[in-house]
Amino acid sequence: MTENLILHEYSQSGNCYKIRLTAAHVGTPLERREYDIIKGETRTPDFLRNVNANGRIPVLQIGDRFLPESNAACVYLAHGTDLIPTERFDHADMLRWMSFEQYSHEPNIATLRFWLAFVGEDKLSEAQRDMLPAKRKAGEDALAVMDEHLSANDWFAAGRFTLADIALLAYTHVAGEGGFDLGRYPSVFRWVGRVQSLSGHVAIKA
Amino acid sequence: MTENLILHEYSQSGNCYKIRLTAAHVGTPLERREYDIIKGETRTPDFLRNVNANGRIPVLQIGDRFLPESNAACVYLAHGTDLIPTERFDHADMLRWMSFEQYSHEPNIATLRFWLAFVGEDKLSEAQRDMLPAKRKAGEDALAVMDEHLSANDWFAAGRFTLADIALLAYTHVAGEGGFDLGRYPSVFRWVGRVQSLSGHVAIKA
Repeated sequence: MTENLILHEYSQSGNCYKIRLTAAHVGTPLERREYDIIKGETRTPDFLRNVNANGRIPVLQIGDRFLPESNAACVYLAHGTDLIPTERFDHADMLRWMSFEQYSHEPNIATLRFWLAFVGEDKLSEAQRDMLPAKRKAGEDALAVMDEHLSANDWFAAGRFTLADIALLAYTHVAGEGGFDLGRYPSVFRWVGRVQSLSGHVAIKA
Repeated sequence: MTENLILHEYSQSGNCYKIRLTAAHVGTPLERREYDIIKGETRTPDFLRNVNANGRIPVLQIGDRFLPESNAACVYLAHGTDLIPTERFDHADMLRWMSFEQYSHEPNIATLRFWLAFVGEDKLSEAQRDMLPAKRKAGEDALAVMDEHLSANDWFAAGRFTLADIALLAYTHVAGEGGFDLGRYPSVFRWVGRVQSLSGHVAIKA
């Protein structure tokens, strides 16, 4: 029996998009429930008690079990498919790029997009405004690391399209909304086009 | 043939300790190479070109291949062992807690430890000093999420000791060096003792 899958999400979040893109590639339907993070809908007592004590989306609900963290949900959905290499080094290397995305890319590129395109620069706190230059620099550094890798490789891991590409595409392809110019990273720009032209691809606004 | 394994590390880093602890549990010897991150030894042109373009440790070298990111290295080392659940949900749930550690725990708890116990509060930049209260709050929130989970579970995933426990132990057991009081999180405190009493355990200073 297949358990019912519900994605608890804020649909414009790249972390949520990763999960929908994985589901599209493996052909798994997801029910979707939208929360407005700007209105604090993932910090309500009900959400914290019943969905995720960490107060964050996305959460993939599998029957009556709840799985937070975008990378974990993608691995769950892609279990046993070609999106997850099984060879020992390739598998670890996929996770390496997924970790890079969450640690060195998302906190900078996704955060600037959210602050500038969703919250609005005039509504940022002073503390947030003080963090803009460091996040700008760290985001550019992450794109440079990607560009260097992609100058010699078509994909991030295992020589083929894997969850690492899905994880990194999510916020990279909308990095312009945070003021990053992908024209400065030509190998990244071409890789975005490669991923978007794959059969099974869906857009973030789909 | 087994390839030679070299851990490029800063031994006091919890991210590096995770890898040594995993290696100890699976009985795999590691050669160790120390870099002083305070002196910028992971940002030299040689390191960036030959070890990790992202300028960070740990990096696990496997023969002539380089694997950055602590979680990826732990998964590589524990491949095919009981430290990695194979059941679909349990496996994803292990990754969920490892992602939580890198996204919600480490940037707060590890960073405060590094700033206060290694760099020194008087040597922090004004920007770093401004971030202390938010990182303090986020670190306490992460410990509270762990404490709630551990009040009803002995381990983080799969009902047994896995890489999720190793990943979360690394910076939790030294959180006091960043000014966090584990006495406020009794279930976390007991879980630290459970992990440290396992056969095969090694200390961060070993």
